[in-house]
Amino acid sequence: MSDTPANRFRPPAVPKVKIAGFWGPRIDVVADKTVNILFDRCIAAGTLDQVDPALPVPDLRIPFQHGNSVTTQMFWDSDFGKIIETAAYAIDRKRDPGLERRIDEVIDAYARLQAEDGYLDSWFQRMRPGERWTNLRDCHELYNMGHLIEGAVAYHHATGKRRLLDVMCRCMDHVIATLGREPGQKRGYCGHPEVELALVRLARATGERRYLDLATYFVDERGRSPNYFDGEAAARGESGEDFWFGTHEYSQSHRPVREQDKVVGHAVRAMYLYSGMADVATETGDGTLVAPLERLWADLTEKNLYVTGGLGPSQANEGFTFDYDLPNESAYAETCAAVALVFWASRMLGRGPDGRFGDIMEQALYNGALSGLSLDGTKFFYENPLASRGDHNRWTWHRCPCCPPNIARLVASVGSYAYGEAEGEAAVHLYCAGEADLDLGGGRRLRLLQDTHYPWSGAVRLTVGLEAPTDFVLSLRIPAWAQDPTLSVGGEAIDVAAVRVKGYARLARRWSPGDVVELDVGMTPKRLYANPKVRQDAGRVALKRGPLVYCVEAVDNGPGLHGLSLPEAAEIRDAFEPELLGGVVALSAAARTDAADWGGDLYREVPPQRRAAALRAVPYYAWDNRAPGEMLVWLRADGVEASARDGEGQA
Amino acid sequence: MSDTPANRFRPPAVPKVKIAGFWGPRIDVVADKTVNILFDRCIAAGTLDQVDPALPVPDLRIPFQHGNSVTTQMFWDSDFGKIIETAAYAIDRKRDPGLERRIDEVIDAYARLQAEDGYLDSWFQRMRPGERWTNLRDCHELYNMGHLIEGAVAYHHATGKRRLLDVMCRCMDHVIATLGREPGQKRGYCGHPEVELALVRLARATGERRYLDLATYFVDERGRSPNYFDGEAAARGESGEDFWFGTHEYSQSHRPVREQDKVVGHAVRAMYLYSGMADVATETGDGTLVAPLERLWADLTEKNLYVTGGLGPSQANEGFTFDYDLPNESAYAETCAAVALVFWASRMLGRGPDGRFGDIMEQALYNGALSGLSLDGTKFFYENPLASRGDHNRWTWHRCPCCPPNIARLVASVGSYAYGEAEGEAAVHLYCAGEADLDLGGGRRLRLLQDTHYPWSGAVRLTVGLEAPTDFVLSLRIPAWAQDPTLSVGGEAIDVAAVRVKGYARLARRWSPGDVVELDVGMTPKRLYANPKVRQDAGRVALKRGPLVYCVEAVDNGPGLHGLSLPEAAEIRDAFEPELLGGVVALSAAARTDAADWGGDLYREVPPQRRAAALRAVPYYAWDNRAPGEMLVWLRADGVEASARDGEGQA
Repeated sequence: MSDTPANRFRPPAVPKVKIAGFWGPRIDVVADKTVNILFDRCIAAGTLDQVDPALPVPDLRIPFQHGNSVTTQMFWDSDFGKIIETAAYAIDRKRDPGLERRIDEVIDAYARLQAEDGYLDSWFQRMRPGERWTNLRDCHELYNMGHLIEGAVAYHHATGKRRLLDVMCRCMDHVIATLGREPGQKRGYCGHPEVELALVRLARATGERRYLDLATYFVDERGRSPNYFDGEAAARGESGEDFWFGTHEYSQSHRPVREQDKVVGHAVRAMYLYSGMADVATETGDGTLVAPLERLWADLTEKNLYVTGGLGPSQANEGFTFDYDLPNESAYAETCAAVALVFWASRMLGRGPDGRFGDIMEQALYNGALSGLSLDGTKFFYENPLASRGDHNRWTWHRCPCCPPNIARLVASVGSYAYGEAEGEAAVHLYCAGEADLDLGGGRRLRLLQDTHYPWSGAVRLTVGLEAPTDFVLSLRIPAWAQDPTLSVGGEAIDVAAVRVKGYARLARRWSPGDVVELDVGMTPKRLYANPKVRQDAGRVALKRGPLVYCVEAVDNGPGLHGLSLPEAAEIRDAFEPELLGGVVALSAAARTDAADWGGDLYREVPPQRRAAALRAVPYYAWDNRAPGEMLVWLRADGVEASARDGEGQA
Repeated sequence: MSDTPANRFRPPAVPKVKIAGFWGPRIDVVADKTVNILFDRCIAAGTLDQVDPALPVPDLRIPFQHGNSVTTQMFWDSDFGKIIETAAYAIDRKRDPGLERRIDEVIDAYARLQAEDGYLDSWFQRMRPGERWTNLRDCHELYNMGHLIEGAVAYHHATGKRRLLDVMCRCMDHVIATLGREPGQKRGYCGHPEVELALVRLARATGERRYLDLATYFVDERGRSPNYFDGEAAARGESGEDFWFGTHEYSQSHRPVREQDKVVGHAVRAMYLYSGMADVATETGDGTLVAPLERLWADLTEKNLYVTGGLGPSQANEGFTFDYDLPNESAYAETCAAVALVFWASRMLGRGPDGRFGDIMEQALYNGALSGLSLDGTKFFYENPLASRGDHNRWTWHRCPCCPPNIARLVASVGSYAYGEAEGEAAVHLYCAGEADLDLGGGRRLRLLQDTHYPWSGAVRLTVGLEAPTDFVLSLRIPAWAQDPTLSVGGEAIDVAAVRVKGYARLARRWSPGDVVELDVGMTPKRLYANPKVRQDAGRVALKRGPLVYCVEAVDNGPGLHGLSLPEAAEIRDAFEPELLGGVVALSAAARTDAADWGGDLYREVPPQRRAAALRAVPYYAWDNRAPGEMLVWLRADGVEASARDGEGQA
């Protein structure tokens, strides 16, 4: 793993970070409840029956949405992979011998299932023997392996146990022998990217360059002409043109990745691919991946991203449509896609702190991703719309259960996303009470203590723990939304503007044990407006406070939320309410809504009369945790004078 | 055909009405171009090959959208039926021996195709021999026959030729013998209603009560328990629960018609069924159908109708979803559904003049139906959305070509919808220059001359043509939108309020030959607002002038129509522009739109700046007849003071 850039930033492993504050109770819920729910439901669905070679081959035929011959069982290894990963973080948080025993049993089944040559995929081995490597386009073999790798690495970090890690190394060694550009090899890659980023994790965990090389091969080979999937289809006796989805944009294999400049197709696949590309760029120092990554990032964040950090508006392809198309009520905005955007953004930080990536990572994390999990950790959103008639509620499970373990593993590993460590540098990307043990290289360790009520308050107190005075750079993210941020070290004020580099306060100095940094990024309620090209948000306003996007719910505002309008001049007040939704800052404002004067007519020549209304907004991530009902993020915006007129003598 | 109410209103046959003014050139276009286009395209598709028993059975397998075993060929008889009907009206307008010869050839093929026992359905006879009457739910046999009946009646009226009429009488006599409640009969009815209204036309044309009785049977039997379609599916060896659409609401056979109170399912089926119910109620005097019809009418017009008179918002079922769900851009609003609403409304007038029905008939006719046909008569909308990004444009044809001949036959027969005739009464439902020959019963005839530029002007001059002074009631519709309508007879002013009965000026008097009635319903541009429960139109305003709904198009207003807002105080000006879109009244107003100050950001904390803009609106029916581009019906509404603020020093 040579020829890498000097300032390569990597996230610390989860066990190196202790989390309290906002995220602490959420991780506890995942550890106490969600991980067991995930496990129970997978077992109940028959997943272990498919994996365990000691059990009879199950005769399950769970229908798949596309009506072809594959079933959701095809994905089951990935579900186990994500559950093992979540369990690893849970076990790190609080030792749980019962959970560990369950995981070990699954790992044991996988170890026994693994073929002599290292191949491992329960669906192909048990349900489709003899068909392995015949349909990389649709059948998720490498995707499944990737998730098992991620689970293996996390479980190894958490428990020190190597069994699954060894299994997956053997499996990847088989893949290295099977796929590639040598004679006799298949020049394939996975229809659903994931294994690329998993291989980089494996390379980092094992120090084995060959896994990074395999990831690099997958990234480089993707989308070359002639398209591998078309040749593979022909080998199956099918026409590539009969591809059920119709376009290779769906899997971002329509052209080589270095020639891609638009986010297209299935949103989760896109985010996983770009994550893998960024990881490979970080680890190999391959600068030719940077320009495409920057183009794709700009395309996503300037034209195709919900204000919640959700993405992929369309159900039809679980992905992207066309620029500025961001429908609110029908937004697909899959939980997995926002989770995967957190992955991508965090990996874009591999080449050093940059607020463009840190800000979006935080936005997706706190809004479009976190909304996927109920406050009690037992129910899940698959789609995360920005408006609801009240009929969109979290499921206890899903036909295709990719999202529940994905948001669970993200929440449980959030500490890993909060920091970056590099040679002589450390970065704080996310603010959260807790402690991190960071590696500055050369045996130097930094123990960083965070004391904060973030995101309810913008004040953060960092205490530097060192064995001795040490020269290093500490970079603290200053969110773009921060208004007049203040900063001091050891009580001495620092001009933020003077030290701000790419959205981070870059503090390069000789640090002493016990040094205290005080940062306040401020937390004031703000209005946000969308680019006028977003036709769905024209004339509308969203509310935000710090990283949190807000929404109004019927339970607070009554039904008919589309009648609600927020005058431009109305003051937005904020107050922490400890009893509300586990403790949140709620927003309130004097607004307007329709008076109850409209009769049975569908249309009439006189507009609805308006009356004063008290608007109350709660964080988007927490919606649908009380009575089911309407929800709305983008409110109608009223001009100042319109509100004055409305206020007079009509209601 | 006894036990009928005394004041049963019927439409005059098309040949009894001569049309000029607004509709005259439109009928000419249909007669000169559209009907031949329809014919040519059907022939090119192979329709006649399927019908003509002298030709080899074609091996066509045109894929159908639902992926089951049926094809669009199944509907082809209905297409021919509607084309024959359109051709009949065209031939009535201007004799066309070439067209008449083509029609006679098709009729000859049908006569030769007809089975010994009278059965007639080209798809079942030629493509699915032996399967007749086994799938009334899906396979449209009676629907096809119904359209051929309508064609036969119209062609007989236009040409005096009886051949197809006789064929269809024989066919219906076979149906009478086959379907019904007698032993050995099938208690079926059609999954797609249509034959009910056609049978009433046949009964009127032939004076044969048995066709009315058959229509009555179909209406009465529909939706009874156990559901006929489930039994029929079982007889085919299928489970009724496997019905591809899932619910019998789709075909309004979920419960007996007298127990129905919500418009549900496929919109065209619903409108055709209700039309048949209204016809049966008119002809039989069965009062038990009136209450359900009134409930369904209220449900449609108070909760489920676009301002254009379009209906059925969803593509999934080509029909209804839930109350007040009226999405604009994704509106399905099939042309056929608006056409069929004209049918239903006109039939609701069978029990006497009532402005509720006349107004909606006019609204659907001039907007959501007429939009289905390009001004030059060569291209067609299937869906009629109320907003477009510019990618919705009229087709030259459609996979399922039901709409083109439907709007063509409606336009070509519009005169029939303009009047009603009853014993001692006549009604004018629609205003249009021309002349009608109406039957007042007892040998009394009324020749009514209309002189008007309606809908560009609201002034109408009616001249009464009689052989001698005659006592009768003349009812003239006073649209609900009319503001301060004025009325005079023989120059003597009449207080409209004093004679207004159910939305019509009811003039009961002894009329003399040459009496002149002058009516002015006024034509002023108006704003319309939607019920606040229509979430898609909240904070929005539509423009209307007389019966015409207006829209803005990019070709007049530039792109970015969602940025356009209409201040509440802005004056709406109207002017007839002879060179525009064949001559229309265009609307204009001082409006506001986004200034070009927004950079590349997707979201920001400052709203878009606004600048003055000149809004120009054209009739909705005429949109997409110039350069393709954005279109919008529901504009953002600005408060008065907001507009004043916007106007100052920002742009």
